[in-house]
Amino acid sequence: MEETTLTMPLVLDLFGVFFFGLSGALLAARRGFDIIGSLLLAGLTGIGGGIIRDVILGQVPTAFNDPFYFVPPALAALLVFLVAPGVQRLMRPVLLFDAAGLALFCITGTIKALEAGMNPVASALLGVTSAVGGGLLRDVVANKTPELFNPRDIYAIPAILGAGLIAWFWELGLTSGGWQLSVAIVVFLLRILALTFHWRVPKAVGPWHRDVRLH
Amino acid sequence: MEETTLTMPLVLDLFGVFFFGLSGALLAARRGFDIIGSLLLAGLTGIGGGIIRDVILGQVPTAFNDPFYFVPPALAALLVFLVAPGVQRLMRPVLLFDAAGLALFCITGTIKALEAGMNPVASALLGVTSAVGGGLLRDVVANKTPELFNPRDIYAIPAILGAGLIAWFWELGLTSGGWQLSVAIVVFLLRILALTFHWRVPKAVGPWHRDVRLH
Amino acid sequence: MEETTLTMPLVLDLFGVFFFGLSGALLAARRGFDIIGSLLLAGLTGIGGGIIRDVILGQVPTAFNDPFYFVPPALAALLVFLVAPGVQRLMRPVLLFDAAGLALFCITGTIKALEAGMNPVASALLGVTSAVGGGLLRDVVANKTPELFNPRDIYAIPAILGAGLIAWFWELGLTSGGWQLSVAIVVFLLRILALTFHWRVPKAVGPWHRDVRLH
Repeated sequence: MEETTLTMPLVLDLFGVFFFGLSGALLAARRGFDIIGSLLLAGLTGIGGGIIRDVILGQVPTAFNDPFYFVPPALAALLVFLVAPGVQRLMRPVLLFDAAGLALFCITGTIKALEAGMNPVASALLGVTSAVGGGLLRDVVANKTPELFNPRDIYAIPAILGAGLIAWFWELGLTSGGWQLSVAIVVFLLRILALTFHWRVPKAVGPWHRDVRLH
Repeated sequence: MEETTLTMPLVLDLFGVFFFGLSGALLAARRGFDIIGSLLLAGLTGIGGGIIRDVILGQVPTAFNDPFYFVPPALAALLVFLVAPGVQRLMRPVLLFDAAGLALFCITGTIKALEAGMNPVASALLGVTSAVGGGLLRDVVANKTPELFNPRDIYAIPAILGAGLIAWFWELGLTSGGWQLSVAIVVFLLRILALTFHWRVPKAVGPWHRDVRLH
Repeated sequence: MEETTLTMPLVLDLFGVFFFGLSGALLAARRGFDIIGSLLLAGLTGIGGGIIRDVILGQVPTAFNDPFYFVPPALAALLVFLVAPGVQRLMRPVLLFDAAGLALFCITGTIKALEAGMNPVASALLGVTSAVGGGLLRDVVANKTPELFNPRDIYAIPAILGAGLIAWFWELGLTSGGWQLSVAIVVFLLRILALTFHWRVPKAVGPWHRDVRLH
């Protein structure tokens, strides 16, 4: 087995996996799954987005190269098992961390795709996929309409904007950590503001058609 | 970024992505998703089948090599936003175009797999996957039973037949554009006839068991 | 087309695909899909787990290298069409064979990943994925909550244990067929005992929180 050291980016990534994993374990609890279902759903939510990204890039998924990645989902399932109501009462702070995960994953995902030689548009799309893919898989596998499509408050837009900015800065040669951190902060703040003020975008059908019955 | 020129096959492919994308944006409208959900679902429907095919072939998905592919889903989402009832009233013509997309994708998908060195059976299956995979992902992600499994009128059979013919002709050395165009026309006409006359195939259970209650 | 000979491991694998395929065709029958839907769902259930495993390993899925793999799903769909109530009455024996498929796939999947150079943790996870992935795809595509998450009797745990043992033995240098057969028998017996005595594990939420309403 390869040696792995806990570098700063890895630690950040593991925190992202953990907070996404919490949402998976909480959904498992709500749906009456057992503790193993909770573990599987936490794992799928935490590492699913990165798996889709890496499979499209033609690379072995990061989570499979590094056994550390299986620790955060296990912790998330354990925490929900022990103190589910507490975790839920803390969902407000958890949403903060989810926003941090969203910011982190859309940026690291975009950069990984750019480094693999993808064009900027595709790289931004893969960054967005990394950020929202785990949550999408979580809901699809638990047989509910994805939160991603819930028009309550914008979720994908901060990730799309962040991934797009990172790809654009890359084209301009602005690849330093400072630029990336700035974008991460913008994505994080946008999502927090959207949560706080229930920012929405228009529905899929223009408001002038609202009375028309689609079937 | 690589140069891309709008060749004839690319233009045809983009039309296919657009018409499949329309069905994704219409479903988003019916489900009350917002405009971003509409865009994401249109994109997944339009390019999802090709992504599954290319991932199985071990290649970077075409849509990620060429930013042009992101234009048709955007147009589809925009069109549904602006004139959804009109798009729906035009569903009859849209189904015509969907049939054209089906014919096109099952043939180009099969040929791409054959060129990658897959055996004829696997190539035909990947051609069918290209043709029906996007619609399958659309329905799975929107949490509805896939239209693909709707026994109302046959959808997969024309694609299976077309992909099988292409793979068989390839084995016989008949790889000219004329043969491929003939197969495309056969697939298209079969699907149109199935739509018009509500052609069906038997259910999964033989009619002699219809009264038996499966649980 | 490459030559394929029906070796013993291939024959075993095809039996696994057939028994998993039966569960797909039976679900199609229950859902009122047509015979083509039955065939597609049987195929997806039978070979889906292996496809996910191989795509993550960056290899062309076994089922696409070898046209034999398309025979068992066809037989499964045909059998359900002809004698669905009989197949269902035989579900008890079918569950026996499903347990055999589970034991077989978790072991062959883990070994394939180890041979591809994956670390033991990732290999065990890919073995579990091979074993439970097809059934998961079956349910997701048919729009029902996956049986995998049904807390009625344990299903994933025998596979997790078996895959873990195989990976551990591999690390210890115990790679002979005898060890693998022993693990297969353990997995098979555990699943049969779980079915017989309705073995369960705790729910995702600790029993001391059972009255708390999660939303």
